[in-house]
Amino acid sequence: MKPVCPEGFPEKPGSLLIEGALTGEGVIDICVSKEGFIVAAGPGAGRKFRGEAEYLVDGTRSIALPGLVNTHTHAAMTLLRGFADDMPLQQWLSEKIWPLEAHLTGNDVYWGTRLACLEMIRTGTTSFHDMYFFMEDAARAVEDAGVRAVLTYGFIDLGNDEKREHEIRATERFVRHVKSLNNPRIKAGAGPHAIYTVSEEGLKWLAGYSEDEGIGIHIHLSETEQEVADSVKVWGVRPPQLLDRCGILTPRTVAAHCCWLDRDECALLGKRGVSVAYNPASNMKLAVNRAMPYHWLREAGVNVSLGTDGCSSNNNLDLFEEMKIGALLQKFFWNSPTLLPAFEMLSAATMGGARALGLGSGILAPGKPADIILLDRNAVCNTPLHSISSNAVYSCTGSAVTTVICQGSVLMLDRYIPGEDEVLCEASAVAADLVKRTGTA
Amino acid sequence: MKPVCPEGFPEKPGSLLIEGALTGEGVIDICVSKEGFIVAAGPGAGRKFRGEAEYLVDGTRSIALPGLVNTHTHAAMTLLRGFADDMPLQQWLSEKIWPLEAHLTGNDVYWGTRLACLEMIRTGTTSFHDMYFFMEDAARAVEDAGVRAVLTYGFIDLGNDEKREHEIRATERFVRHVKSLNNPRIKAGAGPHAIYTVSEEGLKWLAGYSEDEGIGIHIHLSETEQEVADSVKVWGVRPPQLLDRCGILTPRTVAAHCCWLDRDECALLGKRGVSVAYNPASNMKLAVNRAMPYHWLREAGVNVSLGTDGCSSNNNLDLFEEMKIGALLQKFFWNSPTLLPAFEMLSAATMGGARALGLGSGILAPGKPADIILLDRNAVCNTPLHSISSNAVYSCTGSAVTTVICQGSVLMLDRYIPGEDEVLCEASAVAADLVKRTGTA
Repeated sequence: MKPVCPEGFPEKPGSLLIEGALTGEGVIDICVSKEGFIVAAGPGAGRKFRGEAEYLVDGTRSIALPGLVNTHTHAAMTLLRGFADDMPLQQWLSEKIWPLEAHLTGNDVYWGTRLACLEMIRTGTTSFHDMYFFMEDAARAVEDAGVRAVLTYGFIDLGNDEKREHEIRATERFVRHVKSLNNPRIKAGAGPHAIYTVSEEGLKWLAGYSEDEGIGIHIHLSETEQEVADSVKVWGVRPPQLLDRCGILTPRTVAAHCCWLDRDECALLGKRGVSVAYNPASNMKLAVNRAMPYHWLREAGVNVSLGTDGCSSNNNLDLFEEMKIGALLQKFFWNSPTLLPAFEMLSAATMGGARALGLGSGILAPGKPADIILLDRNAVCNTPLHSISSNAVYSCTGSAVTTVICQGSVLMLDRYIPGEDEVLCEASAVAADLVKRTGTA
Repeated sequence: MKPVCPEGFPEKPGSLLIEGALTGEGVIDICVSKEGFIVAAGPGAGRKFRGEAEYLVDGTRSIALPGLVNTHTHAAMTLLRGFADDMPLQQWLSEKIWPLEAHLTGNDVYWGTRLACLEMIRTGTTSFHDMYFFMEDAARAVEDAGVRAVLTYGFIDLGNDEKREHEIRATERFVRHVKSLNNPRIKAGAGPHAIYTVSEEGLKWLAGYSEDEGIGIHIHLSETEQEVADSVKVWGVRPPQLLDRCGILTPRTVAAHCCWLDRDECALLGKRGVSVAYNPASNMKLAVNRAMPYHWLREAGVNVSLGTDGCSSNNNLDLFEEMKIGALLQKFFWNSPTLLPAFEMLSAATMGGARALGLGSGILAPGKPADIILLDRNAVCNTPLHSISSNAVYSCTGSAVTTVICQGSVLMLDRYIPGEDEVLCEASAVAADLVKRTGTA
């Protein structure tokens, strides 16, 4: 008798068949090889595969979507969730966030990243793009959690030569480390933090290094008006022009925020093939005073994806909630009820993210990595079901997700995640201890 | 042996004791009389009560909050969830919403309101303020669902004398009907739709009638710039002045939206004791181009509450999500990261709402109606738990709610709601049939 998943969690990887899930193209079966790739997807596609699949997942009460992709976060900051809010930016950073971060250990980052992975799995995100410290510990957390990630060490030299040498060595060491893991789900990238924290020399080195290594670039860009004004004052040009002169704008680059881009800068990003990570909740919470110009980016053919930013400026990693906030913010700020409709928002959070990170996923089609999520078709948020994409974007939160599959491995089944209690317990403990030893409670 | 609730759903009302729940004032017990009132709340308060309570609810893995209060919705519009989005306002109304509403029956409104009540229970809302049609059917749905509501028939006369007579009779009939129900959880109010749909005569009649009956008033106010401009053109005054001259601005009045109030108008509302219902998701989705001026309302001492608006402009009734969007929108639009902090937002959604509707609930204190919700303290969104109010507002969605009690009756226990499947099934069926017979699919 073939093990049907709801009767037991498929701990070992194996080929699997999702039967009868609803999608935008009707009710389909999805066949997944034991290597974790979709081999067939369509109405009745499972008939032949049923005999050879090691596991069956009943999809008849579900809607199937590609796993969501979070293209900008600082995962371990889950430990700071709710620690400090509603403060002026500089006071918040200098009195609360930085003192805590100065006391972070690798063990903290491991458990903070495990907590982030747990939250992402629970809310339907199968891949994320991270920038933080102690990234080898973050990589270990990603390995243990089973999700997919592109991890970047946050490079900050503050114009200091000695610090730059240190950051260069740290970047090289981390990229080598990730390559040595030889895990198809984990890639390293280069992580220049931003133009106001990295020197021109640092940016140029990272541009060259990332090209040599064939890895991505993850950077904050034009998040605040201050950043743009300072750039003009210090460098004589606006942030995108500075990055372009340093070679940072490439098809392997993901630029986060981009709230203060003008129309020409959107065109430049389009010309260079840069992807943008839209972070609406963070932008609203930190009062950046402008929304990413989605209409200009779309006009310029820029690939737009979606990110949550870190948990201290959001304060969760639920991309379903982020899709709603993102679609609403465009309409509100740019004063157009038709801007960024549900279907485009869902595309940005799936295909857009997969393209930004070069994952090959983001679509349920043969040959693609099997990063698949199932939503409860009978949840209140899916009742009635006039439109899958509208309900996914405007009505549901991540709590509608019941089952999550990454590279063919089942990470959550009918809302059960093996080992969840340990992660919650350890993350709570390290967060409490971090506050205690920092003395900032 | 006393029945402990997790082992069986307490179908019949009875006195109950919630033991060991975490609140902002530490771990407390909450003792509830069989009439549905809190008789004691505090650390160790349950020791004496334990012997006489008919039911015990284990609160040791929970955070207790007052039930949330949704002060502006059109509940039965759940049937239109996801039916039409991302359209220009006039086209959306004339091509999609109005044709469907023209085919609504009392049976549709019953099941649409049952679906709304189910969604509100699941996401921690125990009371709501409604305005729609077929309100006797809505009242029946509220009775059957067990929640608390103030229901108003949406009065629209379009300046037509005959229509006004009809609306007056409909309002009187509905208010009499609700009084005859003699249900302490259900109250009727007067529901002048807005200044652009109700004549001055209609507004004046409603003001007098509501005073005579001692009932509330529920109205849309200054939602769009167009409404303000048209008011000045047609009446020579801005909307609040018109309402004031008709006697509509009273301490029993809840004015929804209020996006386009100026500072003097906020002061006027404060002087008249009017409560405001803030509807951030709807305001963003419909691109009204201005956020409710919370800072001026607070300065004027106005009671601010929170609403979701109807499901076709939101598209859910989750007040936890609404709290987040509401707190973020104030910061973003008014360019201040300290505006509407988490604690004030949570107060607006509990105490503010209870005060707006004159419910007496909204706080966990002796003598108050036992409208209580429990949140999962071990949910990811509550991990770590640096701040209850920050996690409730910024991190959690309604999916963190496990148990809901209204007037002492348990409506959801450990996420189980009796009869949920029937509501989902019937609401889906009537929604599909509504679209089919309207021919607007």
